[in-house]
Parts: sequence; structure tokens; C-alpha cells
Amino acid sequence: MEEAQEQSKNALKKAQKQAKAAAAKAEKAAKAANVPVVGGKKDDSKEIIGITVSKEGNFSQWYQDVVIKAELVEYYNEISGFYILRPAAMHVWGAIRAWFQERIQAMGVEEASFPMFLSKKSLEKEKEHVEGFAPELAWVTKAGDKDLEVQVAVRPTSEAVMYPYYAKWIRSHRDLPLRLNQWNSVVRWEAKQTTPFLRAREFLWQEGHTAHLTEQLAEKEVLEILELYAGVYEQLLAVPVVRGKKTENEKFAGGYWTSTCEAYIPTNGRGIQGATSHALGQNFSKMFDIEVEDMDKNKVHIWQNSWGLSTRVIGVMVMLHGDDKGLVLPPRVAKIQAVLIPVGLTAKTAPEDRAKHLSKVEELRGTLKKAGVLVHVDERDGYTPGFKFADWELKGVPLRLEFGPKDAASSVVTYARRDTGAKATIPLDNIATEVPALLETIQKDLYDKADEAYRTHRLVLTDWDKVVPALDSRNVVLIPFCEGPECEDRIKEMTKSENQEVGPDGHKLPSMGMKSLCIPFEQPDGLVKGETKCLNPKCSALAKSWTMFGRSY
Amino acid sequence: MEEAQEQSKNALKKAQKQAKAAAAKAEKAAKAANVPVVGGKKDDSKEIIGITVSKEGNFSQWYQDVVIKAELVEYYNEISGFYILRPAAMHVWGAIRAWFQERIQAMGVEEASFPMFLSKKSLEKEKEHVEGFAPELAWVTKAGDKDLEVQVAVRPTSEAVMYPYYAKWIRSHRDLPLRLNQWNSVVRWEAKQTTPFLRAREFLWQEGHTAHLTEQLAEKEVLEILELYAGVYEQLLAVPVVRGKKTENEKFAGGYWTSTCEAYIPTNGRGIQGATSHALGQNFSKMFDIEVEDMDKNKVHIWQNSWGLSTRVIGVMVMLHGDDKGLVLPPRVAKIQAVLIPVGLTAKTAPEDRAKHLSKVEELRGTLKKAGVLVHVDERDGYTPGFKFADWELKGVPLRLEFGPKDAASSVVTYARRDTGAKATIPLDNIATEVPALLETIQKDLYDKADEAYRTHRLVLTDWDKVVPALDSRNVVLIPFCEGPECEDRIKEMTKSENQEVGPDGHKLPSMGMKSLCIPFEQPDGLVKGETKCLNPKCSALAKSWTMFGRSY
Repeated sequence: MEEAQEQSKNALKKAQKQAKAAAAKAEKAAKAANVPVVGGKKDDSKEIIGITVSKEGNFSQWYQDVVIKAELVEYYNEISGFYILRPAAMHVWGAIRAWFQERIQAMGVEEASFPMFLSKKSLEKEKEHVEGFAPELAWVTKAGDKDLEVQVAVRPTSEAVMYPYYAKWIRSHRDLPLRLNQWNSVVRWEAKQTTPFLRAREFLWQEGHTAHLTEQLAEKEVLEILELYAGVYEQLLAVPVVRGKKTENEKFAGGYWTSTCEAYIPTNGRGIQGATSHALGQNFSKMFDIEVEDMDKNKVHIWQNSWGLSTRVIGVMVMLHGDDKGLVLPPRVAKIQAVLIPVGLTAKTAPEDRAKHLSKVEELRGTLKKAGVLVHVDERDGYTPGFKFADWELKGVPLRLEFGPKDAASSVVTYARRDTGAKATIPLDNIATEVPALLETIQKDLYDKADEAYRTHRLVLTDWDKVVPALDSRNVVLIPFCEGPECEDRIKEMTKSENQEVGPDGHKLPSMGMKSLCIPFEQPDGLVKGETKCLNPKCSALAKSWTMFGRSY
Repeated sequence: MEEAQEQSKNALKKAQKQAKAAAAKAEKAAKAANVPVVGGKKDDSKEIIGITVSKEGNFSQWYQDVVIKAELVEYYNEISGFYILRPAAMHVWGAIRAWFQERIQAMGVEEASFPMFLSKKSLEKEKEHVEGFAPELAWVTKAGDKDLEVQVAVRPTSEAVMYPYYAKWIRSHRDLPLRLNQWNSVVRWEAKQTTPFLRAREFLWQEGHTAHLTEQLAEKEVLEILELYAGVYEQLLAVPVVRGKKTENEKFAGGYWTSTCEAYIPTNGRGIQGATSHALGQNFSKMFDIEVEDMDKNKVHIWQNSWGLSTRVIGVMVMLHGDDKGLVLPPRVAKIQAVLIPVGLTAKTAPEDRAKHLSKVEELRGTLKKAGVLVHVDERDGYTPGFKFADWELKGVPLRLEFGPKDAASSVVTYARRDTGAKATIPLDNIATEVPALLETIQKDLYDKADEAYRTHRLVLTDWDKVVPALDSRNVVLIPFCEGPECEDRIKEMTKSENQEVGPDGHKLPSMGMKSLCIPFEQPDGLVKGETKCLNPKCSALAKSWTMFGRSY
């Protein structure tokens, strides 16, 4: 397959060369419009393949480049901050949805669908909670050409939509637990710069809202759900996460306490919140007057939880696994797990030989499909194998299978791993077993690599002077912390960096101060309650826990 | 089981008696607020069971009663015209979604997700299409407390959102077909009176939008999808439909031609549109400039389709199968297909006997579950079997299984069919085979009964004077029709009824003029092209087809 490899290299070189000009244009335009127009002009489409900036050199541009060229999203030019999720992205979301839905159904959570609008009235019931969302509410004020008597807002989340009905439906302990989930989209009209998946003005998610008789029953569910969220990251997306509790500053507005799983992006050393499962306590049941008679006929306010997982997970997966060739998909969420490319057929190949070979290819496809592999045969005319290799690498297909006359002669198929680039052959007789096994190996290796990176960049520090240098060298840190909100604010101020580390192309690495990511459930040793001080030198309080801090999204 | 039956009757009588007062109140309030407040007051909740008006006597009130008390929907009191879909309804929708999704995926349709908002700009591109929706558009004019520079409307449907990107993505015949579907909700701010499922200001649906190189390829898909829609009605919901084409007056605004499946409601003799699959032709590809080079390098505008199925299907199912006891669910979409109720256990039953019996019940449950039956055991304390019978009848569970000591002694289980009320016993040894078989029989019988009603009320008429009387006696009619838009308008005027048939409680049956429902693909004989005249006496044109007309939703 050397010639094919050569073609691949050349195709990529050529493409990148051709793209340089367009790329420059694109980046300018992107800076201006905050939208990369790469591929925007019809005529460029067949030329511009491959990623035109390096992940290390300009991470944010690289990310925008990948999500567009791998056809995960399209920018919605009509309204800024909105994105179109294309089939490649919806397949990942669909795989997550099926996995999660099956498990919450087994827990007894039922599906419901509530309206997308809230009235001003119901918003006023829960000020504390709403204040956080108020600046981002999208208000409908007109229907047709008539002004609405009562303006309505598009839900940013559904507590205020749902809980008045919980009050109506829940009358006795017999009606508990009430556990409803909905899959929908919500709108938060962000003022900050938006980014596909990570911060969009509309995003898809699931929101679960449950009601329980006791704090214990509610708390049990909070952690069961958090474990499912961690499972989505670790088992499907090959993204390791740290499970823990949010500090007062970072918990859900109006809630009791928030559990979270936190991921890590090695390229810039930033932490990123994965998903949160909230214990709401009785705050909302008191606001919305949700009471029941318990077994002893006493009126008690119920205990509530809410929990949500959004399409942000896809962005985390892209940032973590992608490389300079483009997207890298974990096999378990890939729409195409293996692409089968006929090679070595030239204009000189006799028609009957071509036909014979392609029938062998078809046979291969059938065998793999029967083995449960999501396989696609790339039979496109007018494209060199090299072009096809680069195209499928860009789109992140985990495994490439090349099959040419030489392979046929020695009854093997040649494969190339997307994650490592490693190449080898598999005897045709074994593909039904070895290809699925290889896909699982890729899944595991992706996770292990990311896990290794996270573990080696999660520094346990007891010396304040080492904190900022640690952040500057792309670590997150675990430090003894008093858990005080004011202290946390001060720490954020004190950890802004003067050192502006700069990438090859002059792109600055983040220098913002650090936020608390979570108080990990798994605590390191060495913290003596009543003795160990909060690490902040300007704080005199005692440390309550090892808390994980980092620059973050 | 006689005593249980007695209890059942009494429970129902008692409940209905208790409900009369509340019902009167409810109807008054409903008329005033256009919202039935039945069950609204906490204290009534345990008393008011059962439906308080008859289906025949006051169909519209009966319908509102059923959808609420069977817990399919809750009215969203905060904003009129919006409804909450509860788990019983979402289960039906979920079954439909899974069935349909599997089939369109096999056809090669991919899933995507487009933003919920359209900008004024993109709306102006397709005037003809938009005019139909303009009065119903919900406009977002503010984000937080800031006015938006460009106002955006919530999508009433997504042509204007999606097609600019079809123009961007589709560059050559190689990019065709492009077939995308999304599951979402859309908003149409109806001025007309709203009704759960049938006309809501927000509803769930799927919208498929596809692009093809030729008219033939596009047309083939239009009819494949229509057949899937008919399958949802006939195979899942046991609702017979007539397949056909819409007239010019009734087709999709801005489209080329529209195929439809039309259902029939015997209680009031009205037709109701089931679902539509539209051939858009090249109208939109010309508006949005979607061109490709065909194999001969000629620029051609592509051929497009769009097709949608909404939660309206659930309303049709309720209206067709429900009865004075409440909802009747076809087994294939029922969340609970069989409810198993322990009976004959009294205060006198010795604890050990009770325990022994309940362990047998548990055994039964396990056997049925293993046989693939969605079974629920009603072990609620403090409710008589009679109350439970009435409760599950209200909720439409297809099959009730009663199991008491007497049944155990003779190793049988007693069953009652929800659809017919028929009762009999099944030997315990056979339940794994006979219960699933019985559920399929119920499914088939529901369909056959509805099909019989539709066939006998679909009158083929060649005498104009018989038309209005036929409508007044709750038929739809097939008449020779010229297919002229003006003639259709005239027919609507001419068929308004003077005869105001009145139900027992003074509720008027519909008297509006008839609309064309469809031009059935299956045409009766007897229409001679070039000879047979349009049946409208005021029309001199020749008939083009047998067209189905009726009073309709």
C-alpha cells in the first residue's frame, strides 16, 4: 500500500498548500465575523480538505475548523450563536440518548413533554433561581402582527414550567417518587462569545426533574444519575472525568447542592464541566408549595432533584481526541466505524478483474456487517485512494481498511488506525472477530491515553507559590481549601497570570484566574481536619477539603 | 368475580353521581375558560373518576374529559393553547417514533437538528409559502432587557431554516439524494380555538426534507413515506385511512402536489387529515437557488420533498376508539398492555394465605413479562378492586387480568377486554401464549370495527340532492368532481346544513359545509372521462375524478 500512502501524503500536502490562502482569508473573516467561512464559497469545496492550523498552534481556530470540516456542525449565519447539528453529530447524540434513556427507564424515570414557553407570572415565583437566567431570556412579545397581552420567554431550563404541575399532581406519599425526564432544546441568549457545542444560544439536552419523600431517597438518585453521566463520558466518549461536588459559588442557582463530573483538555490545560446532577432540597417545593402527607399524616415539603446532560459532551470529545488531521471518533459513537476502500485499481486494470475485485470487496462488507461492524465502502469514482484516506481521517473514522489486488492475492486486508496511524494486515478469515476486537482496543487506548494525561496534570499542591506556574504549564491543581465563597473569589483574582505563554503562531494560552472545578469525592490523603490551613495565603481559615481548581471553560 | 363486578358498577355509579355536580360546574367553567377544570381542585381528585358526559351526547366535552382524566395531557394554564404531554401520551409517541425512525433510517434518511428560529430575512425569500404562516408566527423581539436588532420568529416549519444550507451543501449530483429528518416541536400561534393534540400552539412532530436529482426519484419517495404514515395509523393505532392526493385548494402552500392519508370519526361523521407527504417540485429549489450539474454537466434545479407526522395522531386514536368509560388503547402502543389485579382478598384473609396468593401473583407477572407482555400489577392498598377496575378502564389498558383465590383454586386467570368488555378465563399453563395472542386479537378487532364504520360511511354519490342529507347522517362522500378551486369553494358554501341535528343534551352536530379530503388513489368505477359531469349542479365542467368530501377538522 506504499503508493497509496504516498498519494495520501501528496494529496494532503497539495490540499494544505491550496488551502493556505483560503485559510488566511478564512481566519481574517472568522476574526471579523466570529464565523469561519472556510468552505463557504461553492467553488472551494472540493479543494479545501484537511485542517489548516495545528491543534497545538491555534487551538480555538483548530476546533472551529474541525467541527465544520468533519461536518459535525454548520454555522447558522442568519442568527449568530446558533448552529446546525449535522448527521455526524446527531449520530453521536443519538448513541448517547439511547444509552442513557435505557438506563433511566430501568430506574423508573418516565418521559414527558412540557411547553417551551414560560409566562412572566410563573417566573416571579422563584426569583433566586431566575435571576441567574434573566439576562439570557428570549422574549416573545408578538404573535403575527399582534402584541401579546402577556409576554412569554423561551425556557432556559424548565423548573418554572414544570413545578406548578408537580404541586398539582403530588398529593400524597403514594404519588411519590415522581420522576420525569424530557429531551428538548433550551435557549440561553448568551452575551459571551459562542462556540459550537460548548456555548450555543440553543442546545439539545435532557432535563430530569424528580420528587421524593425524603432527603435520603433524593440523594441516592442524584449520585446514581451522576454515575450515568460519568458513564456517557468514560464508556461511550472515552473521556475520563473526576466526580465531585460543586462549591457554593459554582452550584446550581436556587439548589441545595450540585454533583458534577469534570473533564480536562490537555492542549490548553483547562478544566471543563461535564454534566451536573443537582439536589434541589426543599427550596423549590417551598417556593411552589409542593407538600404531601407522609405516612404519619404530617404535611411535609418534598425533596427534589434536577439533572441535565447537553450536546456539550460532543465538544469535549472533539477537543480531547482530535488531531492535526481532524476529528477522531471513539468507535462506540462512530456512525461509520470502519471505512473499506478498494485500492490498486488503475485505468490499466482489466474490467473483468475490476469486477471480480469489487465483488470480493462486497463480500468483505457483508462479513463485517454480519459481525456487527458499522462499515462503509467508499466506491466514489474520480477520487484517488489518497484523497479518500485524507477525507475519512478528517471525518474521524476509527479504522480504515484498504483492500487491493495484492491484499486479495495474500488473502489479507490492510488496516490503518485513525488514533495511532498504526498499520498492519488481518487475514481475511479472521476479520469477523479481529475487526470488532480492534475497534474495542481503539476505544480502550483512546481512554487510557486521555486518562494518563489527566492523572499526570492533576497536581496535588501544598505550596501556594507553585499554583500559578502549575496552571501556566497546563495543569489543574488540588489544594487544601476552606470552601469559603469570598476566599474562592479572591483566589480567582490572585491566580491571573502575568506570564503569557505563547504558541508558535503567536496564539496566547489562557491566563485567566482559576475557578474551583469540584470537591472530588475521592480525596487525596494528607489533609488533617482542624489543622491543615486553607492554601490561600490571604485566608486564615482551616481547610475543609482538597478542592480541584483550574482555568476552565 | 361477580362481587368484583358489582363493586365495579357501584364504584362507577357512585363516582358518577358524586361527579355530576362537579361536572356541571366543570362544563360551565369550561365554556367560560375554554378549559375543563375537572380534577383541578386538589380535594376532588380522588372522587372524580370516570367520564361525566357521554361520547355520543357531547363529543367535544367527552374528548377533553378523556385526555385529561386518562392522564394523556394536562392543560398549561399559564399560556392558553399549550398542553403538557404526560407519560401515557409520550409512550404512544415514543412507540410511533421508534417504528418510523427505524424505517426511514433503512431508506437512508439521516437525522439532523436545525435552529428553532428564523430571521425576517430568510422568510422573505419564500413569500408564497410564508403567507400561510405569517399570522401565526411567534416573534422574539427581546433578549433579556435588550431589544434584538433583527427580530426572529419561532419556526412554524423549517423550509426557510434548512434550504439555504441545502443550497450550500448540494453542489453536484454526487451530493444527491440529500435526505434529512428532524424530530422537534414547532409553534403556530393559532387564533382558532385550540384542542389537545388536534390543534395546539406548540406540537411535536418529525419533519423530513429531502432533495433529489429527478422528479421520478422524488415522487417515489413521497409515496413510500405516505405508506409509512398509513402504517403508523393502521398497524400501530388501529386507525384505517384513505390514501390520496390533495386538491389545489388543500395542498401545501408553495408545494407542487400533496399526498395525504385521511381518517374518519364515526361519532360526528367528520373527516380528519392524518398526515401529509409533499412533493415540493422545483418551487423551493428555484427560490433558494439549489442547483446541481447533472451527469451531462447541465445546471438543473433539484426536486424536493417534505413530509411531517405530528402528535395529532394521538388525538385521532382517542376520538376513534374511546368510549363512555374513557380511553381505549390499541395494545401495540399501550404502556401497560395488561393490568393484573389481585382480587378476593378481604380483611378476613389470613396473612399467610394473603402472602401465598401474592407470591402466585408475582409468579404470574414474571411469566407474562418473559412472554413480552407489558404487564403491571396493581397492589395499591386502600382501593377496592372495583375502584381499580374503573381506574384502569378510564386509562384505556387493553386487558384486565383478575386473579383471586377462586381463580388460583381452578388454576385459571380471569380476563376482561377493554374494547368489548368480554370476560373469560385462561388456564394458567397457557397465559404465556394466550395473553399475547389475545392482545393481537384486540388490536385486530379495533381496526376491523373502525374499518367497517369507515367503509359503510364512505358513500359514493351521483345525485347532488343526496349530498347534504348524507353529511347530516354522518357520512363522508365520494362524488365526481372537476377539481376546480372555485367550484370547491362554491361546494363548501352550498353544503352548509339548515338541518341542525341535535344530540340528547342539546349539543349540536356539525353543520359546516364540506371540504375536499382527498382524491383517493383507489378510484371507484363508473366515472367516464370526457362524459361524466362534475356533480356540482352550478358547475358545467367535466369530472376529473371521484373526490372524497366531508365535514372535517
